Amino acid sequence: MDREREGVTRLAHLRLGGAHAGPREGAVVVEEPLEIRLDTRPIAVVMRTPGNDIELVLGFLVTEGIVSDPGVILQAAHCDETRNVVEVRSEPGAPNVHPPAQRNFFASSSCGVCGKASIDALRVRAPGLGQNALRVGAELLRGLPGALQNAQGLFGETGSLHGVGLFEADGTPSCVREDVGRHNAVDKVVGWAALNERLPLSAQVLMVSGRVGFEIVQKAWVAGIPIVCAISGPSSLAVELAREAGMTLVAFLRGQEMNVYGAPERIVGP
Amino acid sequence: MDREREGVTRLAHLRLGGAHAGPREGAVVVEEPLEIRLDTRPIAVVMRTPGNDIELVLGFLVTEGIVSDPGVILQAAHCDETRNVVEVRSEPGAPNVHPPAQRNFFASSSCGVCGKASIDALRVRAPGLGQNALRVGAELLRGLPGALQNAQGLFGETGSLHGVGLFEADGTPSCVREDVGRHNAVDKVVGWAALNERLPLSAQVLMVSGRVGFEIVQKAWVAGIPIVCAISGPSSLAVELAREAGMTLVAFLRGQEMNVYGAPERIVGP
Repeated sequence: MDREREGVTRLAHLRLGGAHAGPREGAVVVEEPLEIRLDTRPIAVVMRTPGNDIELVLGFLVTEGIVSDPGVILQAAHCDETRNVVEVRSEPGAPNVHPPAQRNFFASSSCGVCGKASIDALRVRAPGLGQNALRVGAELLRGLPGALQNAQGLFGETGSLHGVGLFEADGTPSCVREDVGRHNAVDKVVGWAALNERLPLSAQVLMVSGRVGFEIVQKAWVAGIPIVCAISGPSSLAVELAREAGMTLVAFLRGQEMNVYGAPERIVGP
Repeated sequence: MDREREGVTRLAHLRLGGAHAGPREGAVVVEEPLEIRLDTRPIAVVMRTPGNDIELVLGFLVTEGIVSDPGVILQAAHCDETRNVVEVRSEPGAPNVHPPAQRNFFASSSCGVCGKASIDALRVRAPGLGQNALRVGAELLRGLPGALQNAQGLFGETGSLHGVGLFEADGTPSCVREDVGRHNAVDKVVGWAALNERLPLSAQVLMVSGRVGFEIVQKAWVAGIPIVCAISGPSSLAVELAREAGMTLVAFLRGQEMNVYGAPERIVGP
């Protein structure tokens, strides 16, 4: 169903300046809305790059805490008439299916949504990662940005895609996905794991291109990933959440250097 | 109320590799949720970098089509007890205040949310920009990435902030804002314009760091901005929306070169 290269289209543009000035045509990343329906109820619209849509939907349901056990999902498929709707059917009466009242999960008290409340709401759903015994070498982590880039098919063409990869503890890539939205790319790899019955991802390292904010750490935590690495910087709430989770958070992973913001004991070697 | 530098904090981390290995402390961008309440009703929670919160809220209300005339807003202020809630009061019975039924505005028919539906929904609210007579030189546009970078205060410190700038037709910066979310930074500059009674922004150029997707073009269109420039690539839906709007969309604006995806007649000179 997911056609190769469907994530990229070619569009006309006018090039100004340089040796290639003039009317041109070039690769542009595709962005389209996807409506997610759970048991006929529309629960979200996400702007995503088409491709691996079923993974995206399953990952979204898991990482947003809507379905805590993917085993209760009987079917997930595109609507017959359009590729921009995916319908999910869950086991009737299954526990652990929580359609969201609102799209966000933030606790809102009389006067006080805050980072603390967001983290508290999450802690209820996701077991801590503190006891996770995964250990990897620093040298292995240094290789991940290059490995992610090598595996990213579309980025070079469009200059506009976020890449996310799951890697085994020996550095072997398990699953690499791309999307206009970094959170979508995370959902796609988590959805891949759900489809392959590999959740929780307790022996995998997540590598994301670019920055790492609250949402990425939240999704990784719910998927049980103990080590998250990013090429660029973290946000304060991402660091706070990773520390709360007992997650190893590595950022500014460039060349020989990296900053470790939580649980450095999982990284062995110089 | 918005203290200088409140958008950056310093956090401990372990540096591995290189000359500065060891326990260190460094700048990290602050990310915190902000709840927006309109006439006591909570309408959204956005993850944002604190600073210019009132601008962010006003810009959000305008660009999401919730308040079409900022003149009906009587007051917008932080809740007494926390900086993470902003309460907005509008003129009782004012027309053009449309609290959202859902957080997204996508039309959803029996089986078919699609890019077309999203664009149709928007076209109803935002007048076309085709007749806008703004003209700027290509040379001026080439200077904007540097001008944005010079004006961005926090990025260099944290490596994690999106920057957005409004520029006059002669290249003078009117307003530059930063945020962990690029859409928030756009809302902040639009909110600045709302506070200063400068909407619609029919004589301004918007410059964004990084990529340009649907959401950025949508917000710029609603604010009446005829020229939007980005350093990196556009998405397909951003291009489609810009063309529908009659907006000049410039991407891959680097060095002497740029790609123009719509309405190139606003750019004069080589």
